[in-house]
Amino acid sequence: MKDFILIKDSIFGDIKLNWDQQKIVNDPNFQRLRYIKQTGFLYLVYPGANHTRFEHSLGTMKLTKDICKRLNLENEELILSGLLHDIGHTPFSHQSEDVVEKYLHKNHEQIGEEIISKSSIRDRISESSLSFKKILHYFRGNDEGKIITGSLGSDRIDYLMRDSHYTGATYGIIEFERLKSKISIKGTSPVIYENGIISAESMLIARYHMFISAYIHHTTLIAGSMFRKALSASIESGHIDPKTLEEHTDFSIISEMLKVKGYVRETTKRILERRLFKRVFYSEMNKTNTEDIKQKILKFGIKDEAFIIIQAGLKTNIEDIGVIDSNDKIIGNLKDKSKLLNVLSKESKNKNILMIVSDEKHNKKMREIVKKIM
Amino acid sequence: MKDFILIKDSIFGDIKLNWDQQKIVNDPNFQRLRYIKQTGFLYLVYPGANHTRFEHSLGTMKLTKDICKRLNLENEELILSGLLHDIGHTPFSHQSEDVVEKYLHKNHEQIGEEIISKSSIRDRISESSLSFKKILHYFRGNDEGKIITGSLGSDRIDYLMRDSHYTGATYGIIEFERLKSKISIKGTSPVIYENGIISAESMLIARYHMFISAYIHHTTLIAGSMFRKALSASIESGHIDPKTLEEHTDFSIISEMLKVKGYVRETTKRILERRLFKRVFYSEMNKTNTEDIKQKILKFGIKDEAFIIIQAGLKTNIEDIGVIDSNDKIIGNLKDKSKLLNVLSKESKNKNILMIVSDEKHNKKMREIVKKIM
Amino acid sequence: MKDFILIKDSIFGDIKLNWDQQKIVNDPNFQRLRYIKQTGFLYLVYPGANHTRFEHSLGTMKLTKDICKRLNLENEELILSGLLHDIGHTPFSHQSEDVVEKYLHKNHEQIGEEIISKSSIRDRISESSLSFKKILHYFRGNDEGKIITGSLGSDRIDYLMRDSHYTGATYGIIEFERLKSKISIKGTSPVIYENGIISAESMLIARYHMFISAYIHHTTLIAGSMFRKALSASIESGHIDPKTLEEHTDFSIISEMLKVKGYVRETTKRILERRLFKRVFYSEMNKTNTEDIKQKILKFGIKDEAFIIIQAGLKTNIEDIGVIDSNDKIIGNLKDKSKLLNVLSKESKNKNILMIVSDEKHNKKMREIVKKIM
Amino acid sequence: MKDFILIKDSIFGDIKLNWDQQKIVNDPNFQRLRYIKQTGFLYLVYPGANHTRFEHSLGTMKLTKDICKRLNLENEELILSGLLHDIGHTPFSHQSEDVVEKYLHKNHEQIGEEIISKSSIRDRISESSLSFKKILHYFRGNDEGKIITGSLGSDRIDYLMRDSHYTGATYGIIEFERLKSKISIKGTSPVIYENGIISAESMLIARYHMFISAYIHHTTLIAGSMFRKALSASIESGHIDPKTLEEHTDFSIISEMLKVKGYVRETTKRILERRLFKRVFYSEMNKTNTEDIKQKILKFGIKDEAFIIIQAGLKTNIEDIGVIDSNDKIIGNLKDKSKLLNVLSKESKNKNILMIVSDEKHNKKMREIVKKIM
Repeated sequence: MKDFILIKDSIFGDIKLNWDQQKIVNDPNFQRLRYIKQTGFLYLVYPGANHTRFEHSLGTMKLTKDICKRLNLENEELILSGLLHDIGHTPFSHQSEDVVEKYLHKNHEQIGEEIISKSSIRDRISESSLSFKKILHYFRGNDEGKIITGSLGSDRIDYLMRDSHYTGATYGIIEFERLKSKISIKGTSPVIYENGIISAESMLIARYHMFISAYIHHTTLIAGSMFRKALSASIESGHIDPKTLEEHTDFSIISEMLKVKGYVRETTKRILERRLFKRVFYSEMNKTNTEDIKQKILKFGIKDEAFIIIQAGLKTNIEDIGVIDSNDKIIGNLKDKSKLLNVLSKESKNKNILMIVSDEKHNKKMREIVKKIM
Repeated sequence: MKDFILIKDSIFGDIKLNWDQQKIVNDPNFQRLRYIKQTGFLYLVYPGANHTRFEHSLGTMKLTKDICKRLNLENEELILSGLLHDIGHTPFSHQSEDVVEKYLHKNHEQIGEEIISKSSIRDRISESSLSFKKILHYFRGNDEGKIITGSLGSDRIDYLMRDSHYTGATYGIIEFERLKSKISIKGTSPVIYENGIISAESMLIARYHMFISAYIHHTTLIAGSMFRKALSASIESGHIDPKTLEEHTDFSIISEMLKVKGYVRETTKRILERRLFKRVFYSEMNKTNTEDIKQKILKFGIKDEAFIIIQAGLKTNIEDIGVIDSNDKIIGNLKDKSKLLNVLSKESKNKNILMIVSDEKHNKKMREIVKKIM
Repeated sequence: MKDFILIKDSIFGDIKLNWDQQKIVNDPNFQRLRYIKQTGFLYLVYPGANHTRFEHSLGTMKLTKDICKRLNLENEELILSGLLHDIGHTPFSHQSEDVVEKYLHKNHEQIGEEIISKSSIRDRISESSLSFKKILHYFRGNDEGKIITGSLGSDRIDYLMRDSHYTGATYGIIEFERLKSKISIKGTSPVIYENGIISAESMLIARYHMFISAYIHHTTLIAGSMFRKALSASIESGHIDPKTLEEHTDFSIISEMLKVKGYVRETTKRILERRLFKRVFYSEMNKTNTEDIKQKILKFGIKDEAFIIIQAGLKTNIEDIGVIDSNDKIIGNLKDKSKLLNVLSKESKNKNILMIVSDEKHNKKMREIVKKIM
Repeated sequence: MKDFILIKDSIFGDIKLNWDQQKIVNDPNFQRLRYIKQTGFLYLVYPGANHTRFEHSLGTMKLTKDICKRLNLENEELILSGLLHDIGHTPFSHQSEDVVEKYLHKNHEQIGEEIISKSSIRDRISESSLSFKKILHYFRGNDEGKIITGSLGSDRIDYLMRDSHYTGATYGIIEFERLKSKISIKGTSPVIYENGIISAESMLIARYHMFISAYIHHTTLIAGSMFRKALSASIESGHIDPKTLEEHTDFSIISEMLKVKGYVRETTKRILERRLFKRVFYSEMNKTNTEDIKQKILKFGIKDEAFIIIQAGLKTNIEDIGVIDSNDKIIGNLKDKSKLLNVLSKESKNKNILMIVSDEKHNKKMREIVKKIM
């Protein structure tokens, strides 16, 4: 191992890793992120979207380091926390989250915390001179940790830039240099300079547009819900032990699912070959009880396996972020200072997608049923 | 001359010119656009912003052609109108407009109309099989002409992309391919598909952010107002004949101004060397009577030449654009369909900049005066 | 299915697919390319290099179509051949080729030919009005087929641009627009205009530099040879049936190999976690008999599994391509017309890498052995 | 003035200027570079090529600083020398050099030296704590000064990247991050690591390709030679005092030339409007005596003003640069280590362009004459 190495990133160029960072990156728990796609099944919409949590984690670390440098924060723990922030992700990132939460009762942050605290990652941290306690503190998003995980955090800057580069959908190309230079720290909380409000607006609206055109693209939603249904079925039927979920990667879970004959295998093949369920109903409405709708449809004699009711929402609400003037005095809250962001934050609650999809055989009948019950 | 030639554009790659288009481009009235900077004095903020109306005109034509092709509009007049749309610009583009309007009582569109109707450009059009009448019709922004000049027009798409490329301020990098593919025609008016609303939002908000960070950047405003004041003085003192204004380029007007000894020459040199007046007052408020303020300041014994009162506003109001569904049925108006654009359009009226600037010698005294009177 | 659809490509923007092309793309044999990385194990060097043969095939088709359009070739079979040109690739693309050839006695072109001739792809072609015979003719690289597969072909243009985009190593960013516009057809063979020689030079030298910095990067070579050794062992031990090789994808073969306990599983895990063998010898020399060296090393009591002897070469030889003048007259051969390409083409034979690598335990001893025998 | 400011560069993003650097940039001698196009008349070929020596100087400084940082050289004089390296350029950069040398007997480096030594720039340097002597030493290209001016210097890296960005001709997009990281210092001379040879090759071949497609593009050559002929005539006729040449900018010299009635004005207008002389003869041959050819043509009764004989060559010879291995030991010379560069360096002597051009009226007759005498 060398004092430092350079890894070439397709977004930010050479990323420098010091000794401690190299050790983390070399750990199998971190290498595992190479096999977890950043944007789940989005590659079925944008064929270039095969990028992974591995490179995103490197990019997030790099941006965190840049921000620390600008703010004269010498905080190696914060930087390492940037590198580790997604260590707990499960197959296809957010696409498996609901299933994991259902069976393991923990989300990816909690799994991440366990990995940092109990695995060989913990050993690597112990070998360094860094404070494990601080790393965990930031990992949980406390204090300066929000430089990574906050509404204007390095995590978001990285994924917007990265998702744009790999999809070709340029909504997410943001003026990140300016944004980085307008973030400051007040006490332990990130704040933004008044003359950085347009950078904040630009980034948060870009994120909203990436939500619409990518993260909640109907194809992604359909593939994801088919995947979750098949994965749950694999677990329910005893073919996959839920305890193993947190060790799996995209390909290992898919390989397991392909072994489960019948519905699970067929659904998995459908996803891989992009033979997806088709929409029979689509609406933007208030959140609703999907169980009710499901029961109604079942009464028409449709098999549970033939259709899925999907509900998805925007996550564009914006946390409280202080706005400071050139004298570093807080003069208000970002959401109040920007009318555009005010609207955007509210939109989060209003916009909810309800979609019903089914396989080819049932498409026609489903349309009729849906007409009757919706 | 060849059947067609290719010109390499830094934004859109090879741009193809047919026979008729080549003739226009070769005309001295069009070549003149090589010497008019697209963004006036913005190069004093972003050193790369030396791009010209010449390349912008080529880009606008290319985008217009792309849109026509997609809509199966065979309309060479519309395409040529895209090429010609900025033919009437005067030195430093919008920076000289007020002076030109004051002395010539016409704006750049009217000057453009004259050039198209009376100069050798008219001869070139006559030599082609194209309808002069139609070209003029579109040039005036009628009917399909809005594909070029409208709120979502090719003019804007080009300048946002171009200004971003040359300044390095990436706000203006828009998803132009998708936007182009979501524009349609209903009757003779451009409309946008419902699933193109986010592209429209993205473009119009990008434009707003380019306004803030570039088009009404305080340095641009100061240099521009110094220029207008010196140019007016050159005219008032009889050194520059206002009738020649429409023939001038950036460099020819500057050269003339440098010949006018005293205040005009000194101010011109100040601009060239970026020794600009400094702010003594800045506020965002309702439009106000600047003449009143000026008179008050003059009473304190400050020379008129030592200070300038600048007023500038956003131009983010959005015209009525129909939104159509996948059956080409109009389902509403863009501004009503998008909450973000609704807010943005209103913002246009509210945000107004009032700035008072002065030279170094008077900075201190001016601050005191301003405190008293504002 | 619609008359045409657009797929967003991260390199070339929207790629349009007509009815026939959509059917091919939707076929499971083609969808399989989504799961075969374009550049094998290069992602272990450049974390962004997760792009696949799927998007590369789309890009190659798009470029082929562009070239056809420019040359007024209405040849849908040629365009479809561009789409299909990599249909026969096996796991990790070129990384599994030697093993496949050893056990199946066919290369990826031959497998591709079988898929086109016998699978459901054949049915899709039959449903169209296209000539199957012509498609196969071009697929084999005959006549205009060289527009795709030749030294200056669309295949290469695409992968150079694409590999650069995903790795971040910009050597491969070539002036592809100009190159495309300088390719012509003489009889049925692609030729290049004299004033396109520098474009050809630029592309072929870029390819050479991508060879050095990516395709034969030592890490790629080591991971690849570990993979081939483990894959061969899986076959020899009867765990993997060689007949299935052509159906496998990256992840399915890896999943199978992980099931083979002992050496195979351990090696596979090593690759996944980037715990690779380390170099104990590296030299550029003439091709040599590696079997001899292997026997000598074995005599020192080193297990076969502990080390690998790797031999790799440049593939920069350049085929004969006619150069034409502006009157479309052939005036020579590309290699003779360009001194740089002449040198480059010869280099191909001279440069050969010989590398010996071993696991950590044997590194020290191996170095001693190698000193004695080399 | 602030401790440091950021200037947004379209190539390298934010460029930071400290106090001393700001003072230089604010000096009128430096601001003058805003009005000198980096690539002379190349904008007549590539409409985007309006970039200036001003931004190129900032970029060169930034790259020099990056290289210093990587090599742990704390050398503010070297960095400032990067900023100043082009301070002596005259109108249209290299396009006016021959005329300036003829009448002032100094080249742009010598003029630059005078500006640094005698103008207000000298005062600005004196106000800083930097050594004027050292700055001059590096400015002359001595020792570490070659980091800026050498064959692999920051000057070249910047202009290749920049010229590509503004022209859209992507030949010059080089892997500059890697190149920067492979440059080192041995004694006081820049050297390159063995594993950086391909980066060096890539850059120097890119430069060669930019020469062919831009720097010696026939349109640039024609416009340039027309300009030099008209400028010389302005001087010979006493309209322009050669002593003023070093103070002029692109626009000021053009304005002066437009005032000289007759041939000079007409030629200047021709350049501005791109009505250029056309080729009647073109050949690549050994250097020849153009005076002889001129006399022969004159004998046919053609006026001197009606034609120009242009001679131009490649400047691709490569200076001696040491190649070092990973132990920092010199193992050879770049030109010997790379066969491609060896060929390229020789090419410099061989390739010479001889071109004869004339105005429209004489085109036909000139062709006949040229047939007889060449």
